[in-house]
Amino acid sequence: MKELVHLEVSGMSCQHCVKAVEDSVGALAGVEKVDVSLEQNAVDVTYDSANVDVAQIASAIEDQGYEVAALSE
Amino acid sequence: MKELVHLEVSGMSCQHCVKAVEDSVGALAGVEKVDVSLEQNAVDVTYDSANVDVAQIASAIEDQGYEVAALSE
Repeated sequence: MKELVHLEVSGMSCQHCVKAVEDSVGALAGVEKVDVSLEQNAVDVTYDSANVDVAQIASAIEDQGYEVAALSE
Repeated sequence: MKELVHLEVSGMSCQHCVKAVEDSVGALAGVEKVDVSLEQNAVDVTYDSANVDVAQIASAIEDQGYEVAALSE
């Protein structure tokens, strides 16, 4: 099932950070779209819950060195 | 002749920025060492003035999207 999660992410400071998050989350099977907002410290991800879950998405972001502060579905 | 230049650079915000500056300056022929300090907004470069000059070093940094505010030799 197609779902959207909104994550508050801290520590992203520049376009390199945006790209690191986009690339790592976008590489997960089941992720359809990644929108990163540097100004709002936010990452919106559209994904297929049959293939990937929010914990895996948050983990991919944290693996890049950022902190996932909160999420809303 | 081996020389050292200290550049004040603004706009570097994270380790991706450090790496972008290190890689671009380090790729110049004649550059021996690049030390980037995120905390001090500074880039120290050891280079051979027979092969490269400060203008080329500053240009490599600016090409990565950062501003060279001042330099001292």
